Amino acid sequence: MAKFMKKRSVKAGLPPGSLVFIGDKMAGDAKITIIDYDENGVEGKKASSIDECFPYKNKPSTTWINVDLVHQVEIIEKLGECFHLHPLVLEDILNTDQRPKMEDFSEYLYVVVRMLSCNGGNAKIESEQVSLILGANYLISFQEKEGDVFGPVRERIRGGKGHIRKAGPDYLAYALLDAIVDNYFVVLEKNGERIETLEDQLLTNPNPATLQEIHLLKRDMIFLRKSVWPLREVIAGLAREGSSLISDSTRLYLRDVYDHTIQVIDALETFRDILTGMLEIYLSSINHRLNEIMKLLTIIATIFIPLTFIVGLYGMNFSYMPELKWHWGYPAVLLLMLSISIFMLCFFRKKKWL
Amino acid sequence: MAKFMKKRSVKAGLPPGSLVFIGDKMAGDAKITIIDYDENGVEGKKASSIDECFPYKNKPSTTWINVDLVHQVEIIEKLGECFHLHPLVLEDILNTDQRPKMEDFSEYLYVVVRMLSCNGGNAKIESEQVSLILGANYLISFQEKEGDVFGPVRERIRGGKGHIRKAGPDYLAYALLDAIVDNYFVVLEKNGERIETLEDQLLTNPNPATLQEIHLLKRDMIFLRKSVWPLREVIAGLAREGSSLISDSTRLYLRDVYDHTIQVIDALETFRDILTGMLEIYLSSINHRLNEIMKLLTIIATIFIPLTFIVGLYGMNFSYMPELKWHWGYPAVLLLMLSISIFMLCFFRKKKWL
Amino acid sequence: MAKFMKKRSVKAGLPPGSLVFIGDKMAGDAKITIIDYDENGVEGKKASSIDECFPYKNKPSTTWINVDLVHQVEIIEKLGECFHLHPLVLEDILNTDQRPKMEDFSEYLYVVVRMLSCNGGNAKIESEQVSLILGANYLISFQEKEGDVFGPVRERIRGGKGHIRKAGPDYLAYALLDAIVDNYFVVLEKNGERIETLEDQLLTNPNPATLQEIHLLKRDMIFLRKSVWPLREVIAGLAREGSSLISDSTRLYLRDVYDHTIQVIDALETFRDILTGMLEIYLSSINHRLNEIMKLLTIIATIFIPLTFIVGLYGMNFSYMPELKWHWGYPAVLLLMLSISIFMLCFFRKKKWL
Amino acid sequence: MAKFMKKRSVKAGLPPGSLVFIGDKMAGDAKITIIDYDENGVEGKKASSIDECFPYKNKPSTTWINVDLVHQVEIIEKLGECFHLHPLVLEDILNTDQRPKMEDFSEYLYVVVRMLSCNGGNAKIESEQVSLILGANYLISFQEKEGDVFGPVRERIRGGKGHIRKAGPDYLAYALLDAIVDNYFVVLEKNGERIETLEDQLLTNPNPATLQEIHLLKRDMIFLRKSVWPLREVIAGLAREGSSLISDSTRLYLRDVYDHTIQVIDALETFRDILTGMLEIYLSSINHRLNEIMKLLTIIATIFIPLTFIVGLYGMNFSYMPELKWHWGYPAVLLLMLSISIFMLCFFRKKKWL
Amino acid sequence: MAKFMKKRSVKAGLPPGSLVFIGDKMAGDAKITIIDYDENGVEGKKASSIDECFPYKNKPSTTWINVDLVHQVEIIEKLGECFHLHPLVLEDILNTDQRPKMEDFSEYLYVVVRMLSCNGGNAKIESEQVSLILGANYLISFQEKEGDVFGPVRERIRGGKGHIRKAGPDYLAYALLDAIVDNYFVVLEKNGERIETLEDQLLTNPNPATLQEIHLLKRDMIFLRKSVWPLREVIAGLAREGSSLISDSTRLYLRDVYDHTIQVIDALETFRDILTGMLEIYLSSINHRLNEIMKLLTIIATIFIPLTFIVGLYGMNFSYMPELKWHWGYPAVLLLMLSISIFMLCFFRKKKWL
Repeated sequence: MAKFMKKRSVKAGLPPGSLVFIGDKMAGDAKITIIDYDENGVEGKKASSIDECFPYKNKPSTTWINVDLVHQVEIIEKLGECFHLHPLVLEDILNTDQRPKMEDFSEYLYVVVRMLSCNGGNAKIESEQVSLILGANYLISFQEKEGDVFGPVRERIRGGKGHIRKAGPDYLAYALLDAIVDNYFVVLEKNGERIETLEDQLLTNPNPATLQEIHLLKRDMIFLRKSVWPLREVIAGLAREGSSLISDSTRLYLRDVYDHTIQVIDALETFRDILTGMLEIYLSSINHRLNEIMKLLTIIATIFIPLTFIVGLYGMNFSYMPELKWHWGYPAVLLLMLSISIFMLCFFRKKKWL
Repeated sequence: MAKFMKKRSVKAGLPPGSLVFIGDKMAGDAKITIIDYDENGVEGKKASSIDECFPYKNKPSTTWINVDLVHQVEIIEKLGECFHLHPLVLEDILNTDQRPKMEDFSEYLYVVVRMLSCNGGNAKIESEQVSLILGANYLISFQEKEGDVFGPVRERIRGGKGHIRKAGPDYLAYALLDAIVDNYFVVLEKNGERIETLEDQLLTNPNPATLQEIHLLKRDMIFLRKSVWPLREVIAGLAREGSSLISDSTRLYLRDVYDHTIQVIDALETFRDILTGMLEIYLSSINHRLNEIMKLLTIIATIFIPLTFIVGLYGMNFSYMPELKWHWGYPAVLLLMLSISIFMLCFFRKKKWL
Repeated sequence: MAKFMKKRSVKAGLPPGSLVFIGDKMAGDAKITIIDYDENGVEGKKASSIDECFPYKNKPSTTWINVDLVHQVEIIEKLGECFHLHPLVLEDILNTDQRPKMEDFSEYLYVVVRMLSCNGGNAKIESEQVSLILGANYLISFQEKEGDVFGPVRERIRGGKGHIRKAGPDYLAYALLDAIVDNYFVVLEKNGERIETLEDQLLTNPNPATLQEIHLLKRDMIFLRKSVWPLREVIAGLAREGSSLISDSTRLYLRDVYDHTIQVIDALETFRDILTGMLEIYLSSINHRLNEIMKLLTIIATIFIPLTFIVGLYGMNFSYMPELKWHWGYPAVLLLMLSISIFMLCFFRKKKWL
Repeated sequence: MAKFMKKRSVKAGLPPGSLVFIGDKMAGDAKITIIDYDENGVEGKKASSIDECFPYKNKPSTTWINVDLVHQVEIIEKLGECFHLHPLVLEDILNTDQRPKMEDFSEYLYVVVRMLSCNGGNAKIESEQVSLILGANYLISFQEKEGDVFGPVRERIRGGKGHIRKAGPDYLAYALLDAIVDNYFVVLEKNGERIETLEDQLLTNPNPATLQEIHLLKRDMIFLRKSVWPLREVIAGLAREGSSLISDSTRLYLRDVYDHTIQVIDALETFRDILTGMLEIYLSSINHRLNEIMKLLTIIATIFIPLTFIVGLYGMNFSYMPELKWHWGYPAVLLLMLSISIFMLCFFRKKKWL
Repeated sequence: MAKFMKKRSVKAGLPPGSLVFIGDKMAGDAKITIIDYDENGVEGKKASSIDECFPYKNKPSTTWINVDLVHQVEIIEKLGECFHLHPLVLEDILNTDQRPKMEDFSEYLYVVVRMLSCNGGNAKIESEQVSLILGANYLISFQEKEGDVFGPVRERIRGGKGHIRKAGPDYLAYALLDAIVDNYFVVLEKNGERIETLEDQLLTNPNPATLQEIHLLKRDMIFLRKSVWPLREVIAGLAREGSSLISDSTRLYLRDVYDHTIQVIDALETFRDILTGMLEIYLSSINHRLNEIMKLLTIIATIFIPLTFIVGLYGMNFSYMPELKWHWGYPAVLLLMLSISIFMLCFFRKKKWL
């Protein structure tokens, strides 16, 4: 989010299906891992070359091919050839600023979503594009960076825990989407904590940094919204659509993920409303402060201005000012000024300004 | 609402259907009560163990099993096994931050709603998740805490008053939903009273605490809205849907509850509009006050500044200032200053500033 | 509108169909009037007891039974029994905070709308719930209070003017709805006049009372909106729906009423936009005033502060201040101060502050 | 737009179809003009009495009857009888505050739209209701006032230019609607010029009159919106609907008018957005000005307040003030004050306040 | 965008299909270029007269006729005759303020879109209307000005790169639309950079010019929105509609362009949200500044006002003021004033105003 847009303009004018990576190029080569499993066993390995993936295409067992660091165009190209992927799909995999979407090519489903993560202490949201190709007996996933939220899914495949080893690649796709959406809650909770901290700050010591922070959080919410709203449609599409690649039992699980995305959206809307309210509180508390200061100025000025006039009056050098000669003139003036002050303080108290 | 989100992140990575309680854990064990009734009689008891519920599964009479303190995973698990509930349903029962929803599993309907209550004097809204499993001849309800709004329904079953003993579990589900929605009106009325109090305060003595209160009320409205809007869809779904578990006569009653939820939503929208109006009034009354103070300052300063200048003028120590020697110099200056003051007061009155 | 909500909570926990009056109880007993008419004649009478209505149920002529002061539960109950009304309908008749709605019970249609009136000079809007039961040859109307806008309709029935005596109870229902909607225009016009008065006030002498009035008007608009929007749906439903109780020729007239409700809604939206604009004008005119006052303060202070400094300077008591001894010192200082004032006034005029 | 609403209340209580004129009564009698034409010829005349129109009803050639000054009820009544118009249609023709709408009475179509015009220099929008009755071989148009935008259409009929003489009354109706919508562009352009003028004024010399003008323009936009939005539906309805009175080739032209109304709406929305932006600019430029004034006050006051204190200090009359006796005391104090002033000016410059 | 509207009023009253150019007339004659190609070869030439286009009409190869500088009415007229275009289409080609739209005339499709470009350094958006006529074996494009974004498409045709030479005019239309939408990203990126620059400025030195710039950007966003939203519908229509002129394989590519327009809309909405946030930050940072200035004034005034009073007090000329005679009177007063100042500074620090 440092920049508002990725450099898409480099592609202007190229023919459709031109494979050009758009995004922040990571250092290093693409990392390909293959996990092949069925009810009876599981086999996992790191592929040193893309060619190692090809034999799995027609194996009846479920194969999960994961490609990290998606920026190497030639690897995507080879995979595309082997699995007969449409050039526009390959293009979309490489354009890492896709909006979440789902496309049905009958032989395979193409799904793009955004995987979010919060790194370290400052709750900065990192976003990464994840593309899934769901075929009859394989699932290919593409990630922008190394590191993901799929660790527990791998564990479950390896450990044979749960339903996952018995089900096909559609259930695997569900598991990955579920892991991604579950991580949205982690991100939301971190943001919820930021908001709570901010709220305390708002009550004790509101300052322009608070405002800056509120606006940053609001922008993060806008950004999250842009990822989650289309995700909702994607998952609704998967749960509804008549594709034969997704079994009915998996659809039930997808409906569950759908509910979770709705909850994420609900939380986002609530956060947005809360942030809007906080903005209003900030502005009016700043306003309130100004009023307090103005009030003090008024009171002090209003009390001293007449007094200063009186002392100035008796500082005049007229030859004939009888009061100046009176013996009790000075104490009388002091008394007069004291009573003026007291009268004014009472007036202000009556007006509830003090 | 102390926290903006419940800790859902503990579940990230777990396989679907993992039974983990999410919410505020209450002290104590789950309390299970069974009420079994038909037209001829009613039998109610506290079950010391979950196994006591199982015989009622196939009894033709209507059985209402109520589970308070839902956090004991093993009880939910056993009930799920006995009544053949889908693992995702069990998971949702334990996740107490569900959005109200209705799911049709053909054998049973699963309904989640939020039960609201206002405890004691300060109209603080308490919210609790209530899950209902509606089968052919049983209804299971799950609550987060002890204490609910179902007392009158139990009375009606025991007393045999009204239609309830003659009807099946669908009518019982309706009665519970009706009790919950009726309680929304209680909560709304308490909030209506808070708004009225606040409005008086706004006119007599607006202060930052008023603002804080308006924002708290607004947030409560947002929170209520999040509970009621999906509830509307849930009840519309029950009244419309072609499930054989709900009879046509009950649907008529559900339409009535539906009307009530619409009224709740209407009242919420009105409250929100009123609160927004109050916010505007607050801000402009604060502004008005500042103006009043500024006006006073201006008037006092504007009157005394020239006078102070004049007395300073005749306080100068020049050797040759003829006025100082005049016998009527002092009274003449006093007269001059008096007329300046009067002129200014008239000017301000003409400008309508006084 | 004194209170934001009617006390609905008294009914929480009661079984559905419990007949409890909710609303402001009027003094006095229910007043029942019966008008029975067909093409050939008309018969009108005040019924001293509800039983007098029953014979009209099966008479082929059109019967209009009007019940004023609806709070007597037993009368509603008896009528319900006689005309076979559903308990939920009776309940809704007694709950005088219903949202306008239309329900088709095949034997009869149940319609709830709000009748508005402006009493006396101050354009205070009074609202009253009117329930209509439209059967094959009868129409029953229920009102909260005595006094209504149906006078001209009664006249037309008695006088045999227009189409009304030839048509059935569906046309009568139309005539009543038309009278109610026509009265909305009267209410709107009164409010339009209030807005015009307010607008004049805004330009000549804006004060906090103006603001208060704008907000009151805005709230009235919110309130009207709540009555008219669902009314629109009700009338659209009557004009569209396939109920055999409404003839095709009457539907044409209902379409006309529908157009009128759209016009009412249009006027309401316009009023709301105008009021929002007036609010903005108010706030900025108040702001403008503050600016004017600030400008004056600045100008007076800025002119006199340097002058006061100069006279202070020559009021110092240093032994060696050569200027004080000069013969033309005093006039020179006076001249200096005069030129400073003139320079400043020119500066302000150049800056367009004066 | 002088008044927000026309006096509709005079009709409350009258039976439907009562012919009462609602609107601003013009002086003079209704003017009726008849133009009868087919491919071969054209005949135009002013009718001195309404009876002259009747023979044209069954003539196979296309007849356009135009009625200016619609307030004479008896003329409308006679026309209605002759052409078998529904009483509600006659009523709507006389109520000149109709919302644009289209109604299909199978024998004829009834269309109401608003014709706008900008008179003279000040771009004041005048609005007039135009009703069209489109029959199989006639078109009747009703206008509130004399003077319209149909001049070019009359020219085309007389000159036989374009398609118009060959086509029927449906094409004539299209031509009139097209002329009306084309005039909307004229009105919009005049308003666009007003906005441009206002924008210049906003940058050079914003004052409360500018604000007033912005709000007037905004209200004009609201008013235009109310005319154009339903017009869009009307024309969409004519282009779509299955009425046999409109030929397919005319529908194509109506689609073109439809595109124009969309463009009018687009322009209106843009104008509204621009006006809202101008409002924000106005408010913040006013605010900016206040800040400038405040800053000057602060700087002058902050510089002189300490200086005035110092000169006051040495104006004290203590017997033992050694500085007063020093020979260089006076120049030293002057120097001190000079350095304080310079320091402060530097401080303000550093803070970017100067 | 210098003017808010193009002069459409010149056409008011003209018959439909009147060919009048509306827009900014460019210097020079229309430039017509013809590119005719199939799989085997390509032929391109500049046509000196419009008649050279006619032979291509029935050639089986794909012909692309491009007309720059569309303001020459007679050329459009001749082309229209030759290719049997509807007069309303010719009219729309000449009216360069069309809203993007698509119309199906079965023989050909008519598409209007807006082509955007950013010229030079200042990211000023230039907009131009592009009309496409897509026939069975030809595509005619009309542009307002010389210079376009179709260079790469021409390259691809000439070089025979990609799919384009094998496909028909539908694919060519897609390629042109793709080039136009790709250029939207270029425009968006430039605006993104403007926003980033503005954001820096907002944090370091907010001034009224910043505000002006924010509003200009906002207006640009409104303008872009008006071009892109209907474009989305146009492309959705092309991808969906059952026209036989577009092959299924091309529809797949159009779906890709559709995704891009959605991304453009997403980016626009994000920009708008960011700009709104920047406006709020601007206003509150300006407010914050005023507060800072006010605080300083208060502190300085509040400290010096009492001190000035005290020195005035001992400047009075009363005969009997014992303090004046005391030897330590002067130092005592100095000490008193020092302690008052220190006390006040501590008070302000405690209040967190310093």
